[in-house]
Amino acid sequence: MKAVGVIVEYNPFHNGHQYHLNETKLKTNAECVIAVMSGNFLQRGEPALVSKWTRTKMALEAGIDIVVELPYAFATQKAETFANGSISLLNALYCEEVCFGSENGTIDDFKNTVSFMEKRQEEYDQYLSQAIKQGYSYPKASSLAYSSLSGTDTYLDLSKPNNILGFHYVKAIHNQKRDMKASTIKRTSADYHDESFTHETIASATSIRKALFSKEIDLTNIENYIPKTTLKWLSSYYNEHQMFHQWEEYFTLLKYKLLTSTPAELEQIYEAEEGIENRLLAHITEATTFHEFMEQIKTKRYTWTRLQRLCLHILTNTTKSALKPLLEKQTTTYIRLLGMSKKGQRYLNTIKKDVQLPIISKVTAYENDLLELDIKATQTYLSIFPEPLRSTLLRQEYSTPPIRFDEVSKMYL
Amino acid sequence: MKAVGVIVEYNPFHNGHQYHLNETKLKTNAECVIAVMSGNFLQRGEPALVSKWTRTKMALEAGIDIVVELPYAFATQKAETFANGSISLLNALYCEEVCFGSENGTIDDFKNTVSFMEKRQEEYDQYLSQAIKQGYSYPKASSLAYSSLSGTDTYLDLSKPNNILGFHYVKAIHNQKRDMKASTIKRTSADYHDESFTHETIASATSIRKALFSKEIDLTNIENYIPKTTLKWLSSYYNEHQMFHQWEEYFTLLKYKLLTSTPAELEQIYEAEEGIENRLLAHITEATTFHEFMEQIKTKRYTWTRLQRLCLHILTNTTKSALKPLLEKQTTTYIRLLGMSKKGQRYLNTIKKDVQLPIISKVTAYENDLLELDIKATQTYLSIFPEPLRSTLLRQEYSTPPIRFDEVSKMYL
Repeated sequence: MKAVGVIVEYNPFHNGHQYHLNETKLKTNAECVIAVMSGNFLQRGEPALVSKWTRTKMALEAGIDIVVELPYAFATQKAETFANGSISLLNALYCEEVCFGSENGTIDDFKNTVSFMEKRQEEYDQYLSQAIKQGYSYPKASSLAYSSLSGTDTYLDLSKPNNILGFHYVKAIHNQKRDMKASTIKRTSADYHDESFTHETIASATSIRKALFSKEIDLTNIENYIPKTTLKWLSSYYNEHQMFHQWEEYFTLLKYKLLTSTPAELEQIYEAEEGIENRLLAHITEATTFHEFMEQIKTKRYTWTRLQRLCLHILTNTTKSALKPLLEKQTTTYIRLLGMSKKGQRYLNTIKKDVQLPIISKVTAYENDLLELDIKATQTYLSIFPEPLRSTLLRQEYSTPPIRFDEVSKMYL
Repeated sequence: MKAVGVIVEYNPFHNGHQYHLNETKLKTNAECVIAVMSGNFLQRGEPALVSKWTRTKMALEAGIDIVVELPYAFATQKAETFANGSISLLNALYCEEVCFGSENGTIDDFKNTVSFMEKRQEEYDQYLSQAIKQGYSYPKASSLAYSSLSGTDTYLDLSKPNNILGFHYVKAIHNQKRDMKASTIKRTSADYHDESFTHETIASATSIRKALFSKEIDLTNIENYIPKTTLKWLSSYYNEHQMFHQWEEYFTLLKYKLLTSTPAELEQIYEAEEGIENRLLAHITEATTFHEFMEQIKTKRYTWTRLQRLCLHILTNTTKSALKPLLEKQTTTYIRLLGMSKKGQRYLNTIKKDVQLPIISKVTAYENDLLELDIKATQTYLSIFPEPLRSTLLRQEYSTPPIRFDEVSKMYL
């Protein structure tokens, strides 16, 4: 049974994701689609709108067969680490192919760029560190280093976020020396960072979240851009939890945490570099919202995303000493199964005996440093709920088995 | 001008405190009364009902002339440390006498007990450590050690909380070798720990707080037991802040803090001994209230008060390495002035040139490790307010000068 992998956040699952999923099936002829999905916190250092369980249901009902969680240690990182963790999970699950969305849309451009860069890694690194010294942010510096080196953007425009991710997926496959095919589908209509709706049915997740939070929560604002199943699950989550998650909800905890920490303690936090913690401490007393705080601390060099990730690691108390050793090999050490269709389960049965990593169904069943971080992240994610809801959700987190879905009857098992 | 010191929490100022203050003036013939008052967190590891500023106003209107803050490092400790810090402050302010309330009421009993104990310190320590090994709590073990040693309770019943404090005040004066007189006034009617009202106008602060929190906040429940000025300030605080402080309000932060800390990190916290942090972590997930949590973790050995103090140090992130060096000398290093009457100001003018410690009027004006802890404690105390109130109060904390009160016109200056 051929399996293809997609690497996703589904925050929330929208029509663009549906398009990508349908095209992936057509293009790859795979029988089983495996989604590597970020957990409760996302690559840009944000909380997911709704929990990973609800996003798993959206994915299964849309046609995904297996959902596995990308560990926090990889999910909340720059593209390279994010890609390495994701590809290592797909490798561990014997995926034959990965299919990603990109602005470019031609897989050869990615491959050529990866091999071009490999040959000239040293020069590239020099350009990169030079640009960083000049005060450019890491993403901007990478893009500058690349175009200085190639003299052209012929291969791939590395200033586009999905091209960057795709580049790192292809590079990770190359580095991890597994025989996985890569393919790409051109993204239609919506730019990753688009904040407004420019198309009738396709919109970026960013614009969907923006519309959701722009005034009183009203799901009719976004119903054109999401499948009915997403609408149903968003609505059900909101009814049960009385909120969608966003940074502002966590600001009171972040401020408390910062105000009770010394600079020396903050320096221990992952991504606290070059004394940036002092800048945070200098502005936190006055800030009344997360947005206000970010506006005050961001600079040309410290981008919003980078600072948001730092704030997230402060919030979850993720230290350098806890995280760095886990990233040494740039591969995951377990497979956390969040959900599967009947077909997904059949696929898992066929590969079971060959899978080298433990497959985690319940978090109580397995002790692992990488998993510890996921648990801490979830505990943080749930910390904003009033009691007794918080305790109930914490308990559920330990006892919830993977979600099982019958894709034919459209029923949960 | 003769000054007498009283050591107080005023949580809140009630008729029993008024009685003690009036009797102190009569008995000592002092012209100026200096109150050493705990800040926002109290000896039993609890948040004060209302801020130190509001409690300072209650004190000034009741007839106190100078209010100085007992630093967090001393205020949230067992009786011995609490007493050492308090007496060192009164010493620094050239108080001629300290007058404390006690169950016993005869100062010679305190003096005799202190000198008896001094002679037999070694034996006492042996009895004490034996009793602790047997699983008794520290206060219970002290009391047992003492009665084993003396064969009698003739001198002083050291199972009574105010006798214990008084004993340590007298001992601290003795150890700090300053020529300060001690006197005591017998407490009337209400026992320190009384939870119900047994007298018409005198009730313990414990019972007053209990009445206040027992149902919907209703100040008429307690108006018989407090001066009109206390009623006025409680009411004004409630109107402005929409709450009185109690542990339950901080439980969401405590739970967040515990759930994002490793056992190794918690072990760094002051008063985390003998692996007690594991007990806390084992019960925090399920607990939905602070009270529930405390009921689950307390044992014969770990008393409610001791655990409550530990929880407080966890909440304020007060580590052993930050606090222990500050306690080496068991004396304060600054005088934080919270308020004064005109008479209080005159007194300060007369001693000003002789005072050896810096007198702090605004916290921005002075850097000091001991003061750092007070600032962190206040930042924690204010962390439960919604924005923008929290930011406003934080800003005020830095800019508020000592409160000045004209005791003749009853006006603030």
